Amino acid sequence: MDNIGLLVTNDPELGEVRDAALVIEDGVVVAVERAGAQGDERIDAGGRCVIPGFVDSHTHLVFAGDRSEEFAARMAGAPYAAGGIRVTTDATRAASEDELTALTRARRDEALRAGITHLEIKSGYGLDVATERRLCEIAGEFTDDVTFLGAHVVPPGIPRAEYVALVCGPMLAACAPLARWIDVFCEPASPHAFDADEARAVLEAGRAAGLGLRVHGNQLAAGPGVRLAVELGAASVDHCTYLTGADVDALAGSDTVATLLPGVEFSTRSPYPDARRLLAAGVTVALATDCNPGTSYTSSMPFVIALAVREMGLTPAEAVWAATAGAARALRRDDIGHIAVGARADLAVLDAPTHLHLAYRPGVPLARALELA
Amino acid sequence: MDNIGLLVTNDPELGEVRDAALVIEDGVVVAVERAGAQGDERIDAGGRCVIPGFVDSHTHLVFAGDRSEEFAARMAGAPYAAGGIRVTTDATRAASEDELTALTRARRDEALRAGITHLEIKSGYGLDVATERRLCEIAGEFTDDVTFLGAHVVPPGIPRAEYVALVCGPMLAACAPLARWIDVFCEPASPHAFDADEARAVLEAGRAAGLGLRVHGNQLAAGPGVRLAVELGAASVDHCTYLTGADVDALAGSDTVATLLPGVEFSTRSPYPDARRLLAAGVTVALATDCNPGTSYTSSMPFVIALAVREMGLTPAEAVWAATAGAARALRRDDIGHIAVGARADLAVLDAPTHLHLAYRPGVPLARALELA
Repeated sequence: MDNIGLLVTNDPELGEVRDAALVIEDGVVVAVERAGAQGDERIDAGGRCVIPGFVDSHTHLVFAGDRSEEFAARMAGAPYAAGGIRVTTDATRAASEDELTALTRARRDEALRAGITHLEIKSGYGLDVATERRLCEIAGEFTDDVTFLGAHVVPPGIPRAEYVALVCGPMLAACAPLARWIDVFCEPASPHAFDADEARAVLEAGRAAGLGLRVHGNQLAAGPGVRLAVELGAASVDHCTYLTGADVDALAGSDTVATLLPGVEFSTRSPYPDARRLLAAGVTVALATDCNPGTSYTSSMPFVIALAVREMGLTPAEAVWAATAGAARALRRDDIGHIAVGARADLAVLDAPTHLHLAYRPGVPLARALELA
Repeated sequence: MDNIGLLVTNDPELGEVRDAALVIEDGVVVAVERAGAQGDERIDAGGRCVIPGFVDSHTHLVFAGDRSEEFAARMAGAPYAAGGIRVTTDATRAASEDELTALTRARRDEALRAGITHLEIKSGYGLDVATERRLCEIAGEFTDDVTFLGAHVVPPGIPRAEYVALVCGPMLAACAPLARWIDVFCEPASPHAFDADEARAVLEAGRAAGLGLRVHGNQLAAGPGVRLAVELGAASVDHCTYLTGADVDALAGSDTVATLLPGVEFSTRSPYPDARRLLAAGVTVALATDCNPGTSYTSSMPFVIALAVREMGLTPAEAVWAATAGAARALRRDDIGHIAVGARADLAVLDAPTHLHLAYRPGVPLARALELA
């Protein structure tokens, strides 16, 4: 690929190269050059900006049902209720595997059209053994970063302790072979989510089953999620909307990434996380869409970047890095999120001269994933 | 066109029709029916939602140059300076007619891809007679709603009174035959814009030349713009970010539409207008993109709708109405902005079951203008 007006490599930092060319073999970058590279097949970037494909490290793509009316009611003043998830769970359980696969594929394709070249996909709308397993299977058709999220909420009608035992026992046994990660919604402020002891039990069971750890934490209030994630060495703790000084200190001294999901704050009309405080403390920050039907039904990483710049004070460069290299760290991967010899040739082409336009032109679909023949 | 899962007609109010069909002849709606309409050529909406095409009643599409660095600096804390327009004026004056036409066409096409089927286009980056005339000519290739905005700012190096006389004299004489509207940036809070007396002189000269009136007003501070617009019977006063009770009362008793431009508040990190106060007073509210390189470089009406719902408390239905029927009123047109027998068949097809998804799925390019063969 040549005639790249501006190449963002994330190597090191943002790594901007003007008038660049890339040599790609078998989906891997084998050379980063100045314009004029030779190859069997030439892709002309037309002077556009090329960046590492977005890495969406937090999505809930496998679901059925529609919750747009709940969204409209919330915007009209109804409070956010995590219990609204039941609508999705009922529809997802009722949907056939073919339907769920088609819905997931359509959402994955939409993400590609927005420049996302790799995504993590969580289960979590089954909340019974058979459905959670089915969701992990479907997710696995689209990514090798499948996350088992049986501990999304406690479904109605089951005592909490019984449900935690189910998640840590038969559900985990059914799903672990299909997943790379386990995740838990640790949020004592919600009656539907899990407290610190429950979350610890889930995460330790997952770790014993060979899974890496992720945590939904500190979304609705300060709580134990962040510190638990750090203590157990989770790859990422996601949301981080309400943090204490101790939470920030814990993150700063750890390898746990703070993944911010400002699409949630947008669509729930909530205050945004304090990203500058995290960056000032040296915490690694990622951005992700949290694409899900309840609180953030967007697949647009450019929209998330625009929010991060407008609402959380990230520079456009910090936001692009967080949505690519930062998110790759949140998935503990070094093959994506940057452009260098040996990295996957996962690229997003921007219909713009620089990455600044992602935040400068909000709502405009400027990014698309490059599809290699 | 049939198999329309949900048709939004704006006739009356939002006018929702389930399982609808439209019969279109020569670009005009000749029947609104239940599914099953017959015709020579069939377009299958695939169960999607169809709405009146968005009407973008406030754009500055004809310009050259890039101000993304200025945007990034502003996000990093530099104050908004209307003087930044000089970068655009210099680049626009230097560009050839072919270049400007190509840039404008690309932006118009981008707008079509976002579901905008009609747009107003202002001049205002020439600020001399020859360039303002050229900008009006280019705008006229893309719309019959051309607005002469020689009174955008006072260019540097010219005494204010001399520039106002130029606008009201030779510049107006050169541009009036090419335009339907005259507009003025009435904002005494900015040293670059025009005070009440200057704005009145411009508007009265425009009216004498046969042009309809529009005003940029009350963007940066409360001021005389809104009341001047109402007094002179302007079709619309745009921005309305800072309003007094007297401003709201004046609008409520008038035929002047309040056009809100929340993309500006997003991209300048400013407080949003109080849309609910306007609606409560009975004011007709329109939404537009204000697509321009300095303060709101978006062509996405869905993004503007999402902001209007999230930040200004419009319901999704109110926001969709404001971006279609409201904007048509701001242009004093009854042939667009709604779907009824006799109206232009300007339609936006949503890749979604209902119009709620426009706000529910922020950043996702769900709307596209239907192009008739």
